[in-house]
Amino acid sequence: MLTDMYQLTMCYAYWKADRHNLNSNFELFFRKPPFGGEITVMAGLDQVLSFLHNFNFTPSDITYIKKLLPSASPSFFTYLSSLDCSSVTVSAIPQGSLVFPRIPLITISGPLGICQLLETTLLTLINYPSLVTTNAARFRIAAGDDKVLLEFGLRRAQGPDGGFSASKYCIIGGFDGTSNVIAGKLLGEDVKVKGTHAHAFVQSFKGLEEVVFEEGTGGEKIKKSTLKYRRELHWEDTHEGELAAFISYADAFPSQFLALIDTYDTLGSGLKNFILVALALDDAGFKPAGIRLDSGDLAYFSSEVRKAFTKMSNQFDRDFFHKLMIVASNDINENVLQELKKQEHAITAFGIGTNLVTCQKQPALGCVYKLVEIEDQPKIKISQDIAKVLIPGRKHSYRLFGGDGSPILDLLIRENEPPPKVGERFLCRHPFEEQKRVFVTPSRVEKLSSLVWDGKNGVVGGMPTISASKERVKSQIKIMRGDHLRYHNPTPYKVSVSDALFKFLHQLWLDSAPVLELS
Amino acid sequence: MLTDMYQLTMCYAYWKADRHNLNSNFELFFRKPPFGGEITVMAGLDQVLSFLHNFNFTPSDITYIKKLLPSASPSFFTYLSSLDCSSVTVSAIPQGSLVFPRIPLITISGPLGICQLLETTLLTLINYPSLVTTNAARFRIAAGDDKVLLEFGLRRAQGPDGGFSASKYCIIGGFDGTSNVIAGKLLGEDVKVKGTHAHAFVQSFKGLEEVVFEEGTGGEKIKKSTLKYRRELHWEDTHEGELAAFISYADAFPSQFLALIDTYDTLGSGLKNFILVALALDDAGFKPAGIRLDSGDLAYFSSEVRKAFTKMSNQFDRDFFHKLMIVASNDINENVLQELKKQEHAITAFGIGTNLVTCQKQPALGCVYKLVEIEDQPKIKISQDIAKVLIPGRKHSYRLFGGDGSPILDLLIRENEPPPKVGERFLCRHPFEEQKRVFVTPSRVEKLSSLVWDGKNGVVGGMPTISASKERVKSQIKIMRGDHLRYHNPTPYKVSVSDALFKFLHQLWLDSAPVLELS
Repeated sequence: MLTDMYQLTMCYAYWKADRHNLNSNFELFFRKPPFGGEITVMAGLDQVLSFLHNFNFTPSDITYIKKLLPSASPSFFTYLSSLDCSSVTVSAIPQGSLVFPRIPLITISGPLGICQLLETTLLTLINYPSLVTTNAARFRIAAGDDKVLLEFGLRRAQGPDGGFSASKYCIIGGFDGTSNVIAGKLLGEDVKVKGTHAHAFVQSFKGLEEVVFEEGTGGEKIKKSTLKYRRELHWEDTHEGELAAFISYADAFPSQFLALIDTYDTLGSGLKNFILVALALDDAGFKPAGIRLDSGDLAYFSSEVRKAFTKMSNQFDRDFFHKLMIVASNDINENVLQELKKQEHAITAFGIGTNLVTCQKQPALGCVYKLVEIEDQPKIKISQDIAKVLIPGRKHSYRLFGGDGSPILDLLIRENEPPPKVGERFLCRHPFEEQKRVFVTPSRVEKLSSLVWDGKNGVVGGMPTISASKERVKSQIKIMRGDHLRYHNPTPYKVSVSDALFKFLHQLWLDSAPVLELS
Repeated sequence: MLTDMYQLTMCYAYWKADRHNLNSNFELFFRKPPFGGEITVMAGLDQVLSFLHNFNFTPSDITYIKKLLPSASPSFFTYLSSLDCSSVTVSAIPQGSLVFPRIPLITISGPLGICQLLETTLLTLINYPSLVTTNAARFRIAAGDDKVLLEFGLRRAQGPDGGFSASKYCIIGGFDGTSNVIAGKLLGEDVKVKGTHAHAFVQSFKGLEEVVFEEGTGGEKIKKSTLKYRRELHWEDTHEGELAAFISYADAFPSQFLALIDTYDTLGSGLKNFILVALALDDAGFKPAGIRLDSGDLAYFSSEVRKAFTKMSNQFDRDFFHKLMIVASNDINENVLQELKKQEHAITAFGIGTNLVTCQKQPALGCVYKLVEIEDQPKIKISQDIAKVLIPGRKHSYRLFGGDGSPILDLLIRENEPPPKVGERFLCRHPFEEQKRVFVTPSRVEKLSSLVWDGKNGVVGGMPTISASKERVKSQIKIMRGDHLRYHNPTPYKVSVSDALFKFLHQLWLDSAPVLELS
């Protein structure tokens, strides 16, 4: 029922014209990579497979659809009630793969009625996951492999499961953890849940008298020792409420003490209060975790914090200061990560919310779902915009690799053509510009799609897991040439067609396009 | 469980320090209206009330949280298990109201532990609904009251319930219908579900021989009569597959025949084929509905279509041609609607997807949830960015209206101050700039927030309905001065504080801000 009304009206019209069982082929693909880049990560396939498995109309759905289509013939609803995906075959590119324009991410074959009905849901289940996974992968590339990346976007996500999807697919795209508790609960061990405290926690304390511990408890020792260091360092002007909050937090989480230090005065109070409690915790045998910055000039503050840690390490001869995390989390986007690379800073981890999960730079991926063949008749959709012309017929897609192990281009061929072979020259053509041709002698050839669902067996080859998908993103990015990954003006990655497909497409196009008559 | 991890860690730290039952006050508000405009529509309150009603941790939640907080004291989990919203009081501005920066949309009072835990979920449930409702309201203002607006965004939405929320809140913001079937099913009569057919339907037909009806049926009559008009008008060169598709669709939906005419050649084939079938349907006693354009220059094509309809109406003396809808649906955004106003066009309805539901222009609203008071102690959060300084303490908000019935400004006062009165001068001050002051003598005073949840009774005043919320948006926009609603550089709407609140805020700020020592 998560679908557009016109799928139901079309389905009824197909059924009424007795065309619902024609054998059809649809392709799901996009035309332009998001965010001005070249790469896109395929994701959402796990959801698609669950959806295919569970697809059916319940009696209450049927009752509602009857209301929507009051004049439809009653036996149409018998047909609708009987529908499931047992007559459908689906191939797809594995989740976590880098994918490129016009290459079918998913190919759907089966009776026209059911295949048409799947359109909207498949698009919904692929568009946003692929978009946000791509975004996360780009953030990972921008941050570098040595930084910890945490997703903090739930509160700004587009709907509760917008937040849930974001958490899951950001992990696949290369993030290390999320703040989203339900994602952790439902997705298991692959999704690490992280979080410490907010400004409200610090603000809620007014003074040290609010923190009272029984004698001999761990908390009392930490408080005492903190105050001793405070006197020793002559830091008695730090904010007392903040210090009380830190002591309380350290008492609750002695092994995970990570403090937000910018509630009142980052360097003048927050940093100092953290150092005091951290020294006390170290005395008590715990390792403090670090600090978080949520405002101000993150590069400057992080460097100052690191300097202070180094100074303290020397002054008190404590090693732990070198291992403290410095987490930054204020309105960080891909551009900020790129800019930070060029400056001196000491941030070790980023908490990223709004820009990551809503994909601020481009909040939608334009995947489409197009009919390419019915009963062995190829279908074309002509458009005044060349980029929107459909490549008709059933096709196979391949990735051709060079001697250095990196992909040279992706290739579409007709279904019955001989595929490109290792060590043999293959003519690859631009789909629309006839003069753009290249001979490729691949060192490796990879077929991109494989069967993931058949009517008899259901899911083929297992459900994609988070860890395998994440690993795939990482390994595919690793072998991609750096100029395709570049932030500014990346080199376009070629998507070609075989000579036979080129000729087939253009003949069909000529045959279908009207010749204008002028007089 | 739809929350950030740090709410749980903070909750534990509050509990450990025995502060979880301190009486606290939080405010949910935003700092800047979205989309470069002045207005924002409050929405999501219905979801918030359901959430408050259902709030609790299940045994399986508790089991999972124990894993996340392995060193937490066991009796903390007894406390967590016992939590619900029966000790919480919530006031809010009614759903569908126009709201402005810094005015609390929701005020939450109760024990610190539970109030803190509500933060993330409340933000998630208000941020996106308010954003997308505002977007829809802006689209409605741009399109004018006489156009039909349909939401077609499900396939590009951020997650399935991103799509669901979009459908619901776009209706509230001023849309007339949605393509989203599940939204119609779950939300009832207030949500009209609309849709016809896609290009795939047209492409799936090759020629007229594919449309065969038994003699004497309605379909046969329509086909015959269509072909008769085709000969009469010498339109035998239109695309046969398209004509076959239109005849089939008309047979399935004779009273709702709305055809997508741009699959092959909008004016040369699609329009003509539509006219042929429409004439045949009219002969058979049905009223055709209209056409949809999904590509090309929408203003130009719609005008040409309208001209052709007028010509046909005269040629065949048929009135129905004047009543046909012309639906446009290709990548429409607010700017396109604004531009179309200035051109000649004949579009009567817009189907809008991606730009509407993902809020492309600004995909997140920045609502925040801030602690303003604990146990009668006002709380302030200082920031280097003045716009981020918190207005501390418990407050009331009012809207002051002028003699012409339109709002002059919104006003925040301290909780125990006398409110502004009709006919009496009231000094309203800019919260941060001391020289900006204005005396307002209101003709009407409206208290903005009211009690929506109390611990004993649960929801107070009933759940907001879609129709009442939609009506509220409409009526509030109607009385707002046009210059606040303007697309380009709208006049800022004032949000003021009373003199007492101004002084209170600035004294607290002075007391809390560190005085730097230079030497």
